[in-house]
Amino acid sequence: MAENKRRIEKTNDFTPIFDEKGLIPCIAASAQTGEILMLAWMNAEALARTLETGEAHYWSRSRRELWHKGAASGAKQKIIEILTDCDQDCLLLKVEVQGDAEATCHTGRESCFYRALEIQGDAKTVRLKFIDP
Amino acid sequence: MAENKRRIEKTNDFTPIFDEKGLIPCIAASAQTGEILMLAWMNAEALARTLETGEAHYWSRSRRELWHKGAASGAKQKIIEILTDCDQDCLLLKVEVQGDAEATCHTGRESCFYRALEIQGDAKTVRLKFIDP
Repeated sequence: MAENKRRIEKTNDFTPIFDEKGLIPCIAASAQTGEILMLAWMNAEALARTLETGEAHYWSRSRRELWHKGAASGAKQKIIEILTDCDQDCLLLKVEVQGDAEATCHTGRESCFYRALEIQGDAKTVRLKFIDP
Repeated sequence: MAENKRRIEKTNDFTPIFDEKGLIPCIAASAQTGEILMLAWMNAEALARTLETGEAHYWSRSRRELWHKGAASGAKQKIIEILTDCDQDCLLLKVEVQGDAEATCHTGRESCFYRALEIQGDAKTVRLKFIDP
């Protein structure tokens, strides 16, 4: 196991590790600004479509279907670069948001990460603060 | 369900959603440079320790134990800010890497994302390219 782990870290072979549901988490970040836009999931088919088309495809866990990001909303993600992490169980997509909309998040924001934790008093009391411009 | 989803997107209440294993994925990024360092997982205890101590704690899925990041390696992560995404099933930690080491990745690199996908010919043939400086 430890030997296999070392091999995965050092290899030039791309051997993505999907979890027991057949999914791999994918961080999408803006290739231009570096802003982290969202975390989504791919299955093998979504990854294949992404590589074939150059546009991000994910697996929608809520709708249980292949999801061509932006096909409905207008905010497509053109792939600029894809990286994998040391143990190849996560992908990082550097993307250019393209199309009729700038909003990666379905709430209309550029990023899904629009709220920060605010600790009030002790660490047990946490509220969220909206950080939109 | 749809109503609950909308509530989660709009609320100031912090109600992180852990998966069926009791884990939530956490992106760690440098607060200074924005570089994405790693993806790791927290359970409720790791999140509580993180909030109490101001240093990132995760759940090590391979070792099956609470993991105070950097306690062994030296590269601790001081929490600058924590954000959550629209549906509160992912966290984004903006951290300052502190301590005796700069290497977030156990391979000795600053980031776990040190290899990029190279498509050769068709999308079925993918190799990895090391992008270390």
